[in-house]
Amino acid sequence: MSVTAARGFLAGGVAAGIKESGDRDLALVVNRGPSRAAAGVFTSNRVQAAPVRWSRRALADGRISAVVLNSGGANACTGQAGAVDALLMAEHTARAVDVDPHEVAVCSTGLIGVRLPMDRVTAGIATAAGRLSPEGGVDAAVAIKTTDSVHKTAVVSRSGWTVGGMAKGAGMLAPGLATMLVVLTTDADASAAVLDSTLRAAVRTTFDRVDSDGCMSTNDTVLLLASGASGVVPDPESFTEAVHAVCLDLARQLVADAEGASKEIEVTVVGAASEEDAVEVGRSVARNNLLKCALHGEDPNWGRVLSAIGTTSAAFDPDLLDVAINDVWVCRNGAAGESRDKVDLSGRGITITVDLRSGDSAAVIWTNDLTAEYVHENSAYSS
Amino acid sequence: MSVTAARGFLAGGVAAGIKESGDRDLALVVNRGPSRAAAGVFTSNRVQAAPVRWSRRALADGRISAVVLNSGGANACTGQAGAVDALLMAEHTARAVDVDPHEVAVCSTGLIGVRLPMDRVTAGIATAAGRLSPEGGVDAAVAIKTTDSVHKTAVVSRSGWTVGGMAKGAGMLAPGLATMLVVLTTDADASAAVLDSTLRAAVRTTFDRVDSDGCMSTNDTVLLLASGASGVVPDPESFTEAVHAVCLDLARQLVADAEGASKEIEVTVVGAASEEDAVEVGRSVARNNLLKCALHGEDPNWGRVLSAIGTTSAAFDPDLLDVAINDVWVCRNGAAGESRDKVDLSGRGITITVDLRSGDSAAVIWTNDLTAEYVHENSAYSS
Repeated sequence: MSVTAARGFLAGGVAAGIKESGDRDLALVVNRGPSRAAAGVFTSNRVQAAPVRWSRRALADGRISAVVLNSGGANACTGQAGAVDALLMAEHTARAVDVDPHEVAVCSTGLIGVRLPMDRVTAGIATAAGRLSPEGGVDAAVAIKTTDSVHKTAVVSRSGWTVGGMAKGAGMLAPGLATMLVVLTTDADASAAVLDSTLRAAVRTTFDRVDSDGCMSTNDTVLLLASGASGVVPDPESFTEAVHAVCLDLARQLVADAEGASKEIEVTVVGAASEEDAVEVGRSVARNNLLKCALHGEDPNWGRVLSAIGTTSAAFDPDLLDVAINDVWVCRNGAAGESRDKVDLSGRGITITVDLRSGDSAAVIWTNDLTAEYVHENSAYSS
Repeated sequence: MSVTAARGFLAGGVAAGIKESGDRDLALVVNRGPSRAAAGVFTSNRVQAAPVRWSRRALADGRISAVVLNSGGANACTGQAGAVDALLMAEHTARAVDVDPHEVAVCSTGLIGVRLPMDRVTAGIATAAGRLSPEGGVDAAVAIKTTDSVHKTAVVSRSGWTVGGMAKGAGMLAPGLATMLVVLTTDADASAAVLDSTLRAAVRTTFDRVDSDGCMSTNDTVLLLASGASGVVPDPESFTEAVHAVCLDLARQLVADAEGASKEIEVTVVGAASEEDAVEVGRSVARNNLLKCALHGEDPNWGRVLSAIGTTSAAFDPDLLDVAINDVWVCRNGAAGESRDKVDLSGRGITITVDLRSGDSAAVIWTNDLTAEYVHENSAYSS
């Protein structure tokens, strides 16, 4: 399971005392090779945490031997001191697992604007290094949880090679990624260039299409590390499919665990003039607070869907819009269609289908409803 | 008060039976001249209600003699039948107050996607026409309420002339206006061209800067009617100032009455390279659900402010951002500044100041916190 499903990887997760709760909060993932090829995708937020800035540079040569991750503090908006802390995390990890510091990626998640307790972090790195194991993937996945109610892992195996991974995230899920940390590993033999193009393609239609509350984070990171330990150079199509499958699995786990949500909503836009139009319309619908409240209240309020579509620049004729909620076409030609009474919203899963009737492109966006619990969770504590 | 504060105007508001509650739901405003010059600004949502489409055409020649408004139904997304209903409202009003149908503007607000009960609407128009009065402004303001807890009016008087108005809106407040209907009247003598430029300038920095929940409506309308009954051609600067003052007063009343809100938040962006940058940053902060939850919980979470700024394309250096909450500079140079403990968020009013340190432009955006009551109000009923 998790990041140790693929051969060549060790992992571990320990309680370093960063979290006041005493829960696990520090994880290591180590690639024992023979390859150390890697790729990464980072938040598009222009306010980027120190570990993101560090990891971007570390990844510049397409080679990563280890990843150190902590929950309990994001090391974001911490100025020059925070940059030094991220560097120290890489250095301590490098020493503990005997690699070059510039081959260590750093990921942090938690409260913004607060320094990490570096004495605990560095002691935790040493402890975790002593407990590295080919069965440590779940411990690592547990250690990166923040408000997550469950840890999140996914694995797919193909002929002779495997792609596995772990993710944390529960809300603040948004375009250009979100407050999510994801580490994917594979024992396939793939170059950094192949990893990069494969990962970008997979992220574009999975993590980038999760839009829980429209809020982008300062720390979002998705890494893909290849050990080559299987000795198999995978068929490109098969590899692309496998990485996409793991990303999609983890992305949907993030939506399923979103803070305070009671509904999982899949917005499918079809008949768009372009994929960009489909994504713009899908995001606009997914971010509409009024619609998200209505769906929470199990009200098939298609008027709010049309109102959201109308704020976009996508190609469409307002008098030709069709909208289905849970497959009932409640809106036809921009006006009332089938009876809203036919729509059963009592289940957790909801589908919204928008037909722009302007072309052949489509896209899917995943989001949640807006609930009083969301407000409570995000007003009752600092995060 | 209201739309009858200026000379030359009659108004009335009656219970036509459109609302199930039996509350007032139909209003008329009539300009008895001598001038009938008028201007209007409408929603930028591309899905526009039938009354918006009608009123745009009616205003094309810069002349409006009467406005008919109803609550209890938006006549939006109602197809060709809805277009006929809007036309019938104009025709019945024209007959009742003896003007040309193409000089009648129509405004509707309420549930989207449902036809209006036209027999009640037309009977209500006749009743309201019989009760028109120079003291009817408040009755009209009451009749356009939907979820508003109070009716909203404003008046300013200058040397010899007056600008007054009424507004409805309580949430769904967003850029390009919102689910708001506003009728402004003046007895100043001003041409349609002057009214148009004055109204656009005033709306741009008032109603367009109210961003309660980022949701744009299908029905938003702001009308300005001039009777010229004072006989005074106002000084342009003074007239601009007066219309702006009335718009600002009404806009702030909309924010103060936003559904379920417990805080009124003023986001001021200074040091921007351009006004567009300042507005983009202000809107991004104002729309950040996580921040709005934090402020509801009285948590001065400046990290969420930075995270929101980082999603924009405005000119700034992340390491030079300053943020004050209630005048305490909790973030300096993109990192922690003064202690968050100094920030008292117990009051209803909250100010957030962002200094981008990139220029001399500024803008103010008004918004609200996000509360469990907002979720409740917007999930518990269709609107």
